Amino acid sequence: MSVATMRFEDGVLHLIDQRVLPLAFETVSCRNAVETADAIRSMVVRGAPAIGCAAAFGLALDAQSAAGQMRPIFDTTLDQAFAVLAASRPTAVNLFWALERMRGVWTSQSTLPSDEMAVALVREAQAIYDEDIAANRAMGAHGAALLPQEACVLTHCNAGALATAGHGTALGVIRSAVEAGKNISVIADETRPFLQGARLTAWEMVQEQIPVTLISDNMAGHMMKSGAVDAVIVGADRIAANGDVANKIGTYMVAVLAARHQIPFYVAAPLSTFDLNAADGDAIPIEERAADEVTGFRDVRWAPEGVRVANPAFDVTPAELIAAIITEQGVIARPDRNKVAAHCRAAPMNNQ
Amino acid sequence: MSVATMRFEDGVLHLIDQRVLPLAFETVSCRNAVETADAIRSMVVRGAPAIGCAAAFGLALDAQSAAGQMRPIFDTTLDQAFAVLAASRPTAVNLFWALERMRGVWTSQSTLPSDEMAVALVREAQAIYDEDIAANRAMGAHGAALLPQEACVLTHCNAGALATAGHGTALGVIRSAVEAGKNISVIADETRPFLQGARLTAWEMVQEQIPVTLISDNMAGHMMKSGAVDAVIVGADRIAANGDVANKIGTYMVAVLAARHQIPFYVAAPLSTFDLNAADGDAIPIEERAADEVTGFRDVRWAPEGVRVANPAFDVTPAELIAAIITEQGVIARPDRNKVAAHCRAAPMNNQ
Repeated sequence: MSVATMRFEDGVLHLIDQRVLPLAFETVSCRNAVETADAIRSMVVRGAPAIGCAAAFGLALDAQSAAGQMRPIFDTTLDQAFAVLAASRPTAVNLFWALERMRGVWTSQSTLPSDEMAVALVREAQAIYDEDIAANRAMGAHGAALLPQEACVLTHCNAGALATAGHGTALGVIRSAVEAGKNISVIADETRPFLQGARLTAWEMVQEQIPVTLISDNMAGHMMKSGAVDAVIVGADRIAANGDVANKIGTYMVAVLAARHQIPFYVAAPLSTFDLNAADGDAIPIEERAADEVTGFRDVRWAPEGVRVANPAFDVTPAELIAAIITEQGVIARPDRNKVAAHCRAAPMNNQ
Repeated sequence: MSVATMRFEDGVLHLIDQRVLPLAFETVSCRNAVETADAIRSMVVRGAPAIGCAAAFGLALDAQSAAGQMRPIFDTTLDQAFAVLAASRPTAVNLFWALERMRGVWTSQSTLPSDEMAVALVREAQAIYDEDIAANRAMGAHGAALLPQEACVLTHCNAGALATAGHGTALGVIRSAVEAGKNISVIADETRPFLQGARLTAWEMVQEQIPVTLISDNMAGHMMKSGAVDAVIVGADRIAANGDVANKIGTYMVAVLAARHQIPFYVAAPLSTFDLNAADGDAIPIEERAADEVTGFRDVRWAPEGVRVANPAFDVTPAELIAAIITEQGVIARPDRNKVAAHCRAAPMNNQ
């Protein structure tokens, strides 16, 4: 049983503070949409599916607070909540997908009393959360089948339980493979600058006693060259209509190296990660984050004063480098525009 | 005028402590070979040419201490000094090259009184140091000619003044290009785990007001893909007979990405970096360093207890990915076994 990234209870969204893991285990309590947006922006919670769930709950919090008000007042409150949550982070599309699902409920019954609407919105947020766990379980089963009986799997960033409602996408595949009796070990890229790999992926794997070896990001190529890596699995923050994948910065380099060494490169992501409105990766906005993430870590600074910094938080891996995209619906081998379209059309939960 | 990495004076080798730069500017004083070997091992001083110079001075220190002793006693002292220095770090061949040059002086005159031999050894160490600066200047001129009038150059690790006796290899090329009136900006990979790029390269460039942008290692691919990089220049720790280059871990990934984006990938290194006894990169020993370099930085730890770590300090970039190797002797374009052999044969200072 993997960790519970968030808990929605009695008008509070409790989030594990992923900024301080694994040295401290603390939770942050969000009581409204503004606090939830702050938590997303500051990366208390991160990971595309987890951000989507948190945003839905953040909206539910404001809906609960405004329950009992006249609908116009309630609706104004919700409008503001949508805006603040949508502005929290730009790249992961699950955020916008979850907000649109919530908006669908909200706008479907404009005359429903606000207290009943609040109940419906809380229910929808909970459904998004529950479905995410179910999707990860399904993805895990589909992905586990792709791994050999014995495999060392390299992963970048954290696409684990902490990045989702639970079980994880990339780490969900690894967990499911282990549950199925496969002998899996993990190489975790530390994933500068936020160190999601060193802190979160390593922690999740150590907790469950799945053998994990931590490396600096720039060691991945050497590990592949030396024959230590059998497969790569990562998550995704947004997948374009042609199968291009935006994911944590550095994913592109891992994918290029994997291709050079003929190591299969897999992406595990729920259907909510697809953005069919983005024709290809160039249409995906790449978040630029603050310089101080790169000049040091937390309170420690090691770069000299006066240095400029670039801090793109994501990059785009072209579809040609991807062996398969694994969703809750199955596997898109060698993804391209036609296969992505067919896969999304076939899904019962068509998100576009 | 770039920084003076080391100073040999009055029986003491003063080294800038590169572990604490740029936040602190401190020097470490070595009074004998053991202290010098410790400084090399613990990376007070690092960078292949700088290690070679430091080792030569370390040997000179013990020679000075034993000056006046009978030759057998003096020779035993020197034997031990050679052994301890040779065991300090395994990958950079300049270390062994410098020690062999010193050994050549030592063994050439077995009957010379020890005080005269000590003088000769100090003189040889000083010559190695002086020649390194001259080599870097020559390399700078050869390399600068390869860069366009306006260029953004990405570099990995620190192959700067701090990695040499002065001026630098890769950064020497950049310095010489700037001196020649070219408009050069630099992208510095931070270079985990020791952060030579974030701390040392960024610091050298800021000091000289050469525009420098710091990135995490895993951003290099994205920067290349977005068109921001015109050339890559790195140093080297050992170059095999076929042109394969061992350099700081991560160099290989940068080279693979540069090839994908048709960005020229240059290596700047003195002839003392060539190891013609190594047929190819597979023959180069790769140092594995301590786990705590990867689980955090200095006193800060961020990885969970119980995680395994790999920490190869170097990797090998195959010759096929290298546009040119720049030495003090000129440029080896598209290096291969024949061109490397011809280049080394033509050198007045034939090191093999």
